[in-house]
Amino acid sequence: MNEDILTSWFAAQSKEDARRFPIGIGDDMAQVRVSPSDSVLITTDMLLDGTHFDLSSCTVEQAGYKAMAASLSDCAAMATVPVCAVCAVGLPLDFDAKKIKALHGGLLRAGRLFNCELIGGDITKWRQAAQRLAICVTMLSVPSGHHPPVRRSGAQVGDYICVTGTLGGSLAGKHLTFTPRVREALAITQTARVHAMMDITDGLSTDLNRICTQSGTGAVVDAAALPVSEAAQNTADPIAAALNDGEDFELLLTLSPSEYPKLAALKEVAIHRIGTITAESGMKLRLSDGSTIPLLAKGFDHL
Amino acid sequence: MNEDILTSWFAAQSKEDARRFPIGIGDDMAQVRVSPSDSVLITTDMLLDGTHFDLSSCTVEQAGYKAMAASLSDCAAMATVPVCAVCAVGLPLDFDAKKIKALHGGLLRAGRLFNCELIGGDITKWRQAAQRLAICVTMLSVPSGHHPPVRRSGAQVGDYICVTGTLGGSLAGKHLTFTPRVREALAITQTARVHAMMDITDGLSTDLNRICTQSGTGAVVDAAALPVSEAAQNTADPIAAALNDGEDFELLLTLSPSEYPKLAALKEVAIHRIGTITAESGMKLRLSDGSTIPLLAKGFDHL
Repeated sequence: MNEDILTSWFAAQSKEDARRFPIGIGDDMAQVRVSPSDSVLITTDMLLDGTHFDLSSCTVEQAGYKAMAASLSDCAAMATVPVCAVCAVGLPLDFDAKKIKALHGGLLRAGRLFNCELIGGDITKWRQAAQRLAICVTMLSVPSGHHPPVRRSGAQVGDYICVTGTLGGSLAGKHLTFTPRVREALAITQTARVHAMMDITDGLSTDLNRICTQSGTGAVVDAAALPVSEAAQNTADPIAAALNDGEDFELLLTLSPSEYPKLAALKEVAIHRIGTITAESGMKLRLSDGSTIPLLAKGFDHL
Repeated sequence: MNEDILTSWFAAQSKEDARRFPIGIGDDMAQVRVSPSDSVLITTDMLLDGTHFDLSSCTVEQAGYKAMAASLSDCAAMATVPVCAVCAVGLPLDFDAKKIKALHGGLLRAGRLFNCELIGGDITKWRQAAQRLAICVTMLSVPSGHHPPVRRSGAQVGDYICVTGTLGGSLAGKHLTFTPRVREALAITQTARVHAMMDITDGLSTDLNRICTQSGTGAVVDAAALPVSEAAQNTADPIAAALNDGEDFELLLTLSPSEYPKLAALKEVAIHRIGTITAESGMKLRLSDGSTIPLLAKGFDHL
């Protein structure tokens, strides 16, 4: 989800609402208390042909996979356990039964990775010839038994900033094929006490800015420490690609320096320490000569 | 939701799944068990400009209202209590902040009718000029404390078939302004034991056929008993309009003749007895001369 785009849409309106919906603004999922002891989390995302995928260069099956995988990545972002999903689609006029089956196959392929069942949906068609495919997946998850959902707002001054995997150049292919970091998120949060976490969808610079804004902190990122992907290394500015390309679907997390060594024991994934949370607001990029320059949020802009 | 369009999309895959998702196929909402004692229900619907509303003849605010109200009507369809919703939108390129605010206002106006909070969402834009507005609302509800969610599959031979309100001609205006039958559904199911229920979205003929198919029954509908709306009375064939127009967002329910008199005590809404559930499969329409003709499902076809 991207609630921070227009936070006023989703502001809880009373203290009673806040008890029922303890997490509702600015995180990857919103939490709903369904009984004194139980809650579920929910995320919804609309993927559009030409914006989030392009059917002139990818298959319908891949688009379905990406839609489901993006929601699974939201579950990972808060270290919650995916339960089930529903999917509503707006189909182009010429979308035939074979394509519907392929779309369904892609949704299922991603869901099966984490035993996340597709339990309902809505299939409808545009009436105009030029209209494109829209896929909306909404997913439910539950908190892990080990800890509450990890929010964006918990970063503390002095925290190390870490990311999983590599960054940049996702559009070269990874954005259609990534495996959501569901298992890694659960392993990380069972191993160490994580203060803040999210998945990188709009680009490290934009998403780290969200953690900083919601935590009331700043950040310094070491350019030399960025795990630049192979795809990004082939671009004109690999560091900029790693910072701003987005759709990495990797985990961005902060934790205290004393917790950081515990992550070394993890076999699931490479974890890179890329910087430090600071008291001074704003983000900075530390260059190889030790100087710093402002780091601006230059990732994907939804509007 | 419209799971019955492509039931194979949503089939539970094992007995374990069936326990976790006791209601998952062919009803207005799918049920998810989140603990031994608690469950939530979920519905998702995609509304498209030119298919479900037309921005050349309605406002963006009205489109937002309809999207949220349609989901509330799904909660009513099973006599469950709405809890919260998320909304993902695909915006046309020229959709400005004023329109976004109007859309939000419409969503909230419907939600406030039943204290149903908008707790999250996703706002994204098409990149091509000709693309139209898509709105996807996903809603959670919980079972009423009085009875389990009412399904489509419970109709019994000899049941009276009843509808609330009036039918037909909804496109003349009602489809944008209706009040979802949430309170009426709860009042009806607290007053009498209802065997099967759904909301009429695709037209009485198509939706009654769903109840019959899922219950393994047939039905006879009395043409003279149909509560034809004022808008439908002004059409060439008012009975056909009442049977097939769709988007009535009224309740369609069946209950045993001994329970039916209890409904007379309800002050909330006019309830019309329009026919009888039969053992013989297929639907029939009884004309004023007592003869019957086949009643075919001629409502809205999603594909």
